[in-house]
Amino acid sequence: MKFYEKYKEAVNHNNSLVCVGLDTDPKLIPSFLNQESGPIFSFNQQIIDATSDMVSAYKLNSAFYEIRGAQGFETLKKTVDYIPSHIPVILDGKRNDIGNSSKMYARAAFEQFGFDAITVNPYLGGDSIEPFLEYEDKGIIVLCLTSNPGALDFQMHGEPPLYLQVAKLMNKWNKNGNCGLVVGATKPESLKQIREVAPELILLVPGVGAQGGKIEKVIKYGGENLIINSSRAIIYASNSSDFAQKAREATIALRNEINQWRER
Amino acid sequence: MKFYEKYKEAVNHNNSLVCVGLDTDPKLIPSFLNQESGPIFSFNQQIIDATSDMVSAYKLNSAFYEIRGAQGFETLKKTVDYIPSHIPVILDGKRNDIGNSSKMYARAAFEQFGFDAITVNPYLGGDSIEPFLEYEDKGIIVLCLTSNPGALDFQMHGEPPLYLQVAKLMNKWNKNGNCGLVVGATKPESLKQIREVAPELILLVPGVGAQGGKIEKVIKYGGENLIINSSRAIIYASNSSDFAQKAREATIALRNEINQWRER
Repeated sequence: MKFYEKYKEAVNHNNSLVCVGLDTDPKLIPSFLNQESGPIFSFNQQIIDATSDMVSAYKLNSAFYEIRGAQGFETLKKTVDYIPSHIPVILDGKRNDIGNSSKMYARAAFEQFGFDAITVNPYLGGDSIEPFLEYEDKGIIVLCLTSNPGALDFQMHGEPPLYLQVAKLMNKWNKNGNCGLVVGATKPESLKQIREVAPELILLVPGVGAQGGKIEKVIKYGGENLIINSSRAIIYASNSSDFAQKAREATIALRNEINQWRER
Repeated sequence: MKFYEKYKEAVNHNNSLVCVGLDTDPKLIPSFLNQESGPIFSFNQQIIDATSDMVSAYKLNSAFYEIRGAQGFETLKKTVDYIPSHIPVILDGKRNDIGNSSKMYARAAFEQFGFDAITVNPYLGGDSIEPFLEYEDKGIIVLCLTSNPGALDFQMHGEPPLYLQVAKLMNKWNKNGNCGLVVGATKPESLKQIREVAPELILLVPGVGAQGGKIEKVIKYGGENLIINSSRAIIYASNSSDFAQKAREATIALRNEINQWRER
């Protein structure tokens, strides 16, 4: 099944736009888990069990696994395999390279690790993104406008600003219907401009919750085809034995808050 | 020792600006190696043994290891450990993210895997690069102008073009003397402009050899502080039992060709 359809089915089935970010940091998980042999995987399993009927997607940030070397990549793979197959799983790797190397990143994400989608950095241009786009059934979600202060340094460069040029070209390159954009929730007004040049692309929106983005405006300007990610506010909602239950409650609360604005 | 000093010592000791790219593809290495238990590592070992007195650095492209999952990252680590400690080793990962994730990528590259330098994608801006820059002894080599056709799509955006803005800001952020830029050899005229705004930063120059960049112009416009990378033309110079010897000969030939222009 194509990524877009899988995402749509999860959205409809779970009535949710929430993506849970499994940015699992050994220092932040409940300490009792560290007595187990695979604490990160065990944490992920319990979060997934507690939330998979309430989400539209999961997102795994590669940095949190890479930091543990080969062992971390084993945990990454095991976690992808554990997520129910009807829920799309995004590798937040912000990868890219040129030519053959770009092909290898695409193959690694989709064939080696089994992800449904990947975040890609656009700096290297169209031919660097092409090997990802060739996977018609996968989602290629390109960084557009991010939620950090440094977004001003280069993403706003030029006239029109670079991020709008990225949105425009990704919309043009969306021949297989598999493109998306990363747009931070902290800049909702820019969502409006992005929607003007890319009306239907899936937007992955990080930055609600811990980073302070306003959900009302994200829905107002972003419209449909949103994946709204929350990581820390959900997975670290508690660091006691009730962490999975609290993660579920935080997911439901975010889902309901989002749906309140969707339904207006 | 700081990356810059380690690089300078290797340049002087080996009288070489050549960086050998260990972009080791199981499909392209001599087939007899595939009978061994760790063919990629065995290939890398032999290339390193044959070239380490003729290079200024080694560069490992992460994509070629990532594609083999956890096992690939074990090979990556073993290869870094195997390279003689006086030769700098660059992770060509083109990584970046924001905040805590960016810190984790830096820690993974420098502390988990033991690299001396890393290539970083600038799209996310200054605060995303900062966690890398805090490693004063490491090299932070940021994508500026790349050797592929798609470099036109975004790197040339705006006036001045984005790549010059990247060069300018990296020069400004070079407070710890640990910044560099990636500039493709296929665009040597742009090297001149880049040198005007970043006169002393180390430039990592891929694209000679297989990609057709002209060495004479790279030296003419790039001046000193260059790391000139060649991957395929060196490591796949032969796919028979003489592959390591042929890699050595190709490294020496490239070193001599470069030095011919340096010495004018």
